[in-house]
Amino acid sequence: MSSRHGRASPLFSPAGTGITLDLDCMDALEVPGRQRLDEALRAMAQLEAGALANLDEKRQVGHYWLRDPDLAPTDTQAESIREAVERCESTARALLRRFQPTAVLHLGIGGSALGPRLLLEALGDTRPDTGVPARSYRVLDNTDPNGFCGHLATVDLERSLVVVVSKSGGTVETRNALLTVRRAFDEAGVAFAARALAVTGDGSELHRLATREGWAAVLPLWDYVGGRTSVTGPVGLLPAALLGISGRELLEGASAMDAATRLPVDDNPAACLAAVWLAAQEDRPRAMVVLPYADRLQSLARYLQQLIMESVGKKRDRAGNVVRHGLTVYGNKGSTDQHAFVQQLRDGPDDFFCTFVQVLCPGAADPVLENGVTAGDALAGFLEGTRQALEQDGKRTLTIAVDRVNPRSLGALIALFERAVGIYAELVNINAYHQPGVEAGKKAAARVLDAQRALVAVLGDVPESADSIADKAGVGDPGLAWRILRRLAACPGRGVRRLAGDEPGEDLFGAG
Amino acid sequence: MSSRHGRASPLFSPAGTGITLDLDCMDALEVPGRQRLDEALRAMAQLEAGALANLDEKRQVGHYWLRDPDLAPTDTQAESIREAVERCESTARALLRRFQPTAVLHLGIGGSALGPRLLLEALGDTRPDTGVPARSYRVLDNTDPNGFCGHLATVDLERSLVVVVSKSGGTVETRNALLTVRRAFDEAGVAFAARALAVTGDGSELHRLATREGWAAVLPLWDYVGGRTSVTGPVGLLPAALLGISGRELLEGASAMDAATRLPVDDNPAACLAAVWLAAQEDRPRAMVVLPYADRLQSLARYLQQLIMESVGKKRDRAGNVVRHGLTVYGNKGSTDQHAFVQQLRDGPDDFFCTFVQVLCPGAADPVLENGVTAGDALAGFLEGTRQALEQDGKRTLTIAVDRVNPRSLGALIALFERAVGIYAELVNINAYHQPGVEAGKKAAARVLDAQRALVAVLGDVPESADSIADKAGVGDPGLAWRILRRLAACPGRGVRRLAGDEPGEDLFGAG
Repeated sequence: MSSRHGRASPLFSPAGTGITLDLDCMDALEVPGRQRLDEALRAMAQLEAGALANLDEKRQVGHYWLRDPDLAPTDTQAESIREAVERCESTARALLRRFQPTAVLHLGIGGSALGPRLLLEALGDTRPDTGVPARSYRVLDNTDPNGFCGHLATVDLERSLVVVVSKSGGTVETRNALLTVRRAFDEAGVAFAARALAVTGDGSELHRLATREGWAAVLPLWDYVGGRTSVTGPVGLLPAALLGISGRELLEGASAMDAATRLPVDDNPAACLAAVWLAAQEDRPRAMVVLPYADRLQSLARYLQQLIMESVGKKRDRAGNVVRHGLTVYGNKGSTDQHAFVQQLRDGPDDFFCTFVQVLCPGAADPVLENGVTAGDALAGFLEGTRQALEQDGKRTLTIAVDRVNPRSLGALIALFERAVGIYAELVNINAYHQPGVEAGKKAAARVLDAQRALVAVLGDVPESADSIADKAGVGDPGLAWRILRRLAACPGRGVRRLAGDEPGEDLFGAG
Repeated sequence: MSSRHGRASPLFSPAGTGITLDLDCMDALEVPGRQRLDEALRAMAQLEAGALANLDEKRQVGHYWLRDPDLAPTDTQAESIREAVERCESTARALLRRFQPTAVLHLGIGGSALGPRLLLEALGDTRPDTGVPARSYRVLDNTDPNGFCGHLATVDLERSLVVVVSKSGGTVETRNALLTVRRAFDEAGVAFAARALAVTGDGSELHRLATREGWAAVLPLWDYVGGRTSVTGPVGLLPAALLGISGRELLEGASAMDAATRLPVDDNPAACLAAVWLAAQEDRPRAMVVLPYADRLQSLARYLQQLIMESVGKKRDRAGNVVRHGLTVYGNKGSTDQHAFVQQLRDGPDDFFCTFVQVLCPGAADPVLENGVTAGDALAGFLEGTRQALEQDGKRTLTIAVDRVNPRSLGALIALFERAVGIYAELVNINAYHQPGVEAGKKAAARVLDAQRALVAVLGDVPESADSIADKAGVGDPGLAWRILRRLAACPGRGVRRLAGDEPGEDLFGAG
């Protein structure tokens, strides 16, 4: 299955994945050492067997079960997964037939958007006859009225489906998108519920709403699947089915990579990858630069940025010690970025390691253009040239070669990084499966909106200083009050008037 | 013009820009010190007066002249700029009338793509009746056959314009895009030249081709304008005109910011910005995270990533000392990223400073959705909450508030960062205007393609090892030979056959 001999030999080529890892990790494996790696793999095995791996939230971590339901600790869990896979396909089939949709509005943020976006950009246009075109699959992943408006203005609601993905069902951004989209359907007199699908946790607010209103389908998001590892569940499988992408092949590729990443350390590409990441932090912090040389994999960097930074960017280790751990990930695509930040990678500080992703065979025709070379040859030449230059300069690189971008290889790629993150987190003793900072961010925003309501409520006809208004409203931070009032006053129709003083701090605000 | 008093007062609010900088830089200014900042501003004044600021390439640096042609050292330069502004508008008007295009294929990479993309994403759909819709303005910024194919398959060539942007006219990626697009026009029997526009340097290969074939227009890209600072020239103004965006207002905004960033240090927002960037590197390297809370400004982070990293990511300072300087930039948009890497910003290491960009007034309707708040209020709440949390945690932030996203404020934003980069580069004594690593990358890729041609030329019917083939072909690196042959063999129709040995290193390759 894998081999590490021969000068030019690839180290790992797991069967059934279509992926080859050119990853020289013999030295890196010594950084954590075989024993800690063995322990990490044992911990991963326990996690797969249903241990409460996310201790803070007392949750199991079951994304590996999604592609191998037999692994799930209980028959009920296994059956629920199998049934969901079926229902993603049958629901999509029925809705594609019934509405012949020309667009899908996908409402979700974070893990509820990044996986679907990765699938649609990588594979959305490979089977255009069997699903909605990728370009018409719109992801509304924010609470920006401009974003909402831009999408709503350019789709035919009558022939649009709406997919709403939220685990808790209470995510503010997704909730606002839902309220906005729904209002547009109502105003256009187009029936919403028949075109709406929810992917959400059992008993969530969204679950109750969708059930009550009789939406076209409600698909499960289980407690044991985190957002950033949810793409091989209904979060990814439903969009895949709507786009004509084979979810089964995605699952097969992920399952094949899962098998390869359960092997002993020396044969395990994910263990080696995790060791390489750790070794890259040994003498100084190094960011992971992700450079797929392929337009279709452009959002891979952003997908991995979330998967890795949200998993390992943590204040405390599992023992409660303050460690302030992080592993910065950024990137976009080659060769495009060679005309941008790659200048710094080549000539600047040794503060990164580069993960090249090469697609060996383009999906499109790649005719000879000039001098015997094709566009794809040039792309490969740029990758190889950059890789050589970085290595000659003593910088670290690794290359993942993908035979072709298809559901199988993409599933395998996703599973590889999921497992590598899990192992890496074991090595640095961090809970990779919670996100306390994200939760805190939601609460902080809610407090700001409380302050806004309080300020607006006490606003009078006679303009006053922000200090005075903050005081009346019981808002402790006058700077915040000033910023909130300044923003509202900048927009007509928000009921706030600003009289500028000689100095900005002397502005007066009133109702009007 | 600017003020720094009052607790909640914004520091800078340059007239005519629609931008307010909340940038507490009093301490940061002490890091380089007033004297070095004064010197940097004097150097910027000399640069604007026509000094050979890019010494390595013996070039003037004249992007500031683009919005104030009177500043250009010679009347010829000034006249050429004025004429180009006119011609961008008149050419676009004529072509929009003649072809009523439903799509534009924009061929360019690096600075020839990022500025246009920023404009089209930020402003492309604000005046839909007067130009091509943003969604139909396609940027082909790579040499990936999949990317080419995806765009070509979804536009009507008869009603498409083609904009080709390349300063040297020889950029491989853009050249390949041109050959591919042209071939598609030829195969469809649609006249290419009448629909084609070039933006390129005088006398370049592209210039000669376009002139010879009588393209619809050839617009100038002057020697004294670098790619990453070209957006206020025809590189940005032509796309703007095709999209119905006012180039004049873009220039006015940039010019207003230029005026504000020529002021003495204490009144100069760009000097303060540069000082803040430098101060952030004082005790450890810190990356610049760019977080616009606005869907339309999503590509700002990538634009700034190129502008900054390509400018200051350098091996040597201007005295020739090896300094390995860099300033890493990454980001995407809020609140979206709060469900991704912001987890690490909040809880992880203090290795970044966050540049928030807030849009005070959304361009779209922003009705109250629930509990008295709008989608835009929620967006503002997320920004404020995250900003507070980062600051409470001792992390560095600065906020740029934009009244509205319009050509004026976008031009001002671009000019602000252009000037800040110039000043920063002066402070660290780096030539911000060349990109030796990018040039080296092009040459390295060319050598790889030479190797490919040599290998394919000696390939025989009897399969041989990569070593042996490399030897015959005079390719010194057998690992490279193996990787090239492996890739070609993975694609049907490339004339290379691979017989796998027991070990990957023992593969044999032959013609077939």
